[in-house]
Parts: sequence; structure tokens; C-alpha cells
Amino acid sequence: MPVNRLYKLYLSPHRKYVKILKNLLGFVPGNLSLYRLAFRHKSVATSVKKGVKNSNERLEFLGDAVLGSVVAEVLFKLYPYEDEGFLTELRSKIVSRNNLNQLARKLGFEQLIEYDSRALGPTRQGSLLGDAFEALIGAIYLDKGYDFTRHFLVNHIIKAHIDIHTLEQTETNFKSKLIEWCQRHSKDISFDLIVNGDGENSKLFTVQASVDGQIMGLGKEFSKKNAEKLAAEKACEALGI
Amino acid sequence: MPVNRLYKLYLSPHRKYVKILKNLLGFVPGNLSLYRLAFRHKSVATSVKKGVKNSNERLEFLGDAVLGSVVAEVLFKLYPYEDEGFLTELRSKIVSRNNLNQLARKLGFEQLIEYDSRALGPTRQGSLLGDAFEALIGAIYLDKGYDFTRHFLVNHIIKAHIDIHTLEQTETNFKSKLIEWCQRHSKDISFDLIVNGDGENSKLFTVQASVDGQIMGLGKEFSKKNAEKLAAEKACEALGI
Repeated sequence: MPVNRLYKLYLSPHRKYVKILKNLLGFVPGNLSLYRLAFRHKSVATSVKKGVKNSNERLEFLGDAVLGSVVAEVLFKLYPYEDEGFLTELRSKIVSRNNLNQLARKLGFEQLIEYDSRALGPTRQGSLLGDAFEALIGAIYLDKGYDFTRHFLVNHIIKAHIDIHTLEQTETNFKSKLIEWCQRHSKDISFDLIVNGDGENSKLFTVQASVDGQIMGLGKEFSKKNAEKLAAEKACEALGI
Repeated sequence: MPVNRLYKLYLSPHRKYVKILKNLLGFVPGNLSLYRLAFRHKSVATSVKKGVKNSNERLEFLGDAVLGSVVAEVLFKLYPYEDEGFLTELRSKIVSRNNLNQLARKLGFEQLIEYDSRALGPTRQGSLLGDAFEALIGAIYLDKGYDFTRHFLVNHIIKAHIDIHTLEQTETNFKSKLIEWCQRHSKDISFDLIVNGDGENSKLFTVQASVDGQIMGLGKEFSKKNAEKLAAEKACEALGI
């Protein structure tokens, strides 16, 4: 074992944190501050410069891209005779917030995430885990490079924890589900972005899902895409799809 | 120069193609069939197995992901004090179909793309180039690995041909433009997916963009996202935005 790893695991003042990470991830991290950042939710972040906070959101952006690339390659090679539509849909199931949340919970990330539970409603705590998982991938990439991250994802995450063939069979997301149902039943489906009322958070998007002109679901989220998803989910519920 | 490269450039029966690629890309390709596939549009593809065609679409899926990851890292490092919203928006400008089309044209890819012009309307020829560019990134990745592809993209493409700081200043895409305009003018905007008429290609999506309930633009495309973009573009035109 190289001296540097020995020091980190047994002598460094951060040895406790290093051991936890090693147990969770299976390797000794290099730049610890990247990993701490990956687990820091914006609710406990402080401003570092020009209004930018030291939360995990930038790492999440990077990790999401690296994860997308690794999963794309895995599926490209695993399914040599499927078209790009199949590959795109299967990848979106694998990297769905729901799937990543479950994965992060199974991996025991909850003990590492720093957040302020008072600043979050109980419903918003769910995506903390998946967000942190993506941020962690960003941290590993910056710390160890692409090939290491790819190897970690393929061998420690995908092969060990993701049942691709089962995901392949599962029903697709609520939005696709709703659109398919409407096409099958010759109904008109629309997702309309509603302009915010006065006094509402201007960063919040409100989307209503209407079937044949009748509003069946309403979603409010901080991205239009998530608001659409939520509206679709509610419409599926209302229609018993 | 290694013997293998010498052979490829001067003796192999494919030496003409190898030289063209070397002139365009700046390196000697390994597995030539990957590069040929990257430039083969589905209009000239033949069926290989189980209905899957030997077109560049699967490589485009892979290359899109690798490109997204490389650009994410470049922006992450170039803008250490910008948040993930800024990074996401700037990346989408860089990898926009419009930007990639221009890039591929500038790089001289037109001479390499195989397609059947009779099977494509003149308006659909535009995205051939950007699609092939992404497929090429997929081919380079499979042929040479991530680090090589990243180096190629950063040094031969991004630094040489993409003016990130100018893109940063440019107006965002038509859909965002339209939504922002509607929010500013307190108008209701909706993008509605219209069910296909009988006899229409079932893979075609029709989206209408309505402002305050009035249809301002209609888009028909093979993906819902592109149909929305087109509808938004037409609405912007109609509204003089």
C-alpha cells in the first residue's frame, strides 16, 4: 500500500472520513474537499464568491454528464442491435431521479449528506440523494479521471446494483405513459406552461396537463421539465392509467 | 512514424480515405469502419440484423453523450464562479444542432457524408451535418478512448472553432425566447402535441405553439422536442420577436 494511502487511512486528521468513504466507495479518495462538496446540499452552503455557493450543484452538473456518457457506452455495447430510440429511453430510466435516489440510499449515502432539514419540505428531501450521487460522480471524475470513474461505475455500481434487463421491461415515465395513452385513445394531450401569479416565486414553473381540453393534472417545480413530469403523474393518477 | 500508420497512409487500399480523414481530423484513424459508419445517413443505410440499419444514429447517441461530458468539464473549469444553470444553458448553445451544423460545414464534412438527397427534403439536409459530427465523436471515442477524444475536442474543435464567450452573449434558443417574451408580456404560452391525422406518418410529431390561446406556429418533426423548437421558431417569426 503506497505511503500516501497509508497516511490517509491511519494518520491523517481526516482518517475517519477517509475510512467511511473507502467503505462506501471501495477506493481511497484523493482530494477530500471534492467529496465533501459533493455531499453538501445548497441548504447548508455558504457564499464563496460573486454569489456562488459551495453547494454540490455544479458537481452535479458535471457528474450528470459523465454518468450519461458512461451509461451510453454501456448500453451501446450491451445492445448492439437496438436503435438509438431504445438506447435513449433505457438510459433515461437508469439515470432517472427515482432510480438514482434508490441507489444512493442503498449505498448508504444518507449518513454523508449535509443539509438543513428545516429548509426543505419532506417531499423535497427525496431528490437530495440522487443529486448527491451525481455530484459524487463529478467529484470522482475530477479526482481520478474518466477511466477510473467509468470503471467504478461499471463494476461497483451498474453491475452490482442496477438490473438493466428489469428496467428495460418496466413501464416508461409518466409523461410518455400519458402521451401514449392519449394517442391510443385518440385524445388530445397538451402540457401548458402557466404564467406565475403575483407573489409567486418567479423561479417556479407551473404546468398543467390537459386531456381533450380538460385539466387533469397540475405540477409546480423549479424546472419546466419536472413540472411537466409532476403534472403528467397527477393526470395518470386521475385517469387511472 | 509507426509502421501501421505508414501502411495506412501510403500502402493500404483505403489510403485515399485515410488521407482525407487525416487532413480533416489531424490524426490517423484506427478502425476505419467506425468512421465510415459515422458518415452514413439512414437514407442510404441497409438492414444488418433484426431490422437495425447500419446508419450513424447509434454512434450519434454515443457521441452526443461524450460531447456533453467533455463540454461540461470545459465549462466547469472555465467558469469556476458560475452556477449550474449558467453552465447548462451555455452547454446547450454549444451543442445546439445549429452550432454543430455550422461547425461540421466549416470542418469540411460535407464531402464525406453519404446520403440520398432524393429521400430528404431540402429543409432536412441541414441537420445531417451536426448529426454526423456527433456520430464522429462516438466513432473517435470507440476507436481511441475518452482521453484522446477529449483532447481532440478541446484542442482541435473547441479552442480552434468555438467562440464560447460570444456564444455566452448570444440570444438563447427560440423556445426559451418565446417563453421569456410571453412571461414579460404576461401572456399564456402553450405547446400542444396534436394527434396525427389518419394516413400521416405515425413517427411524426406535430406541436402547435399557442399564445393566449391563439395558434402562432406549427412544427412537424420526428421528435417532440424538435417539433416544439420548430413551432417556437415559427411563432417567434409571426410575433416579430
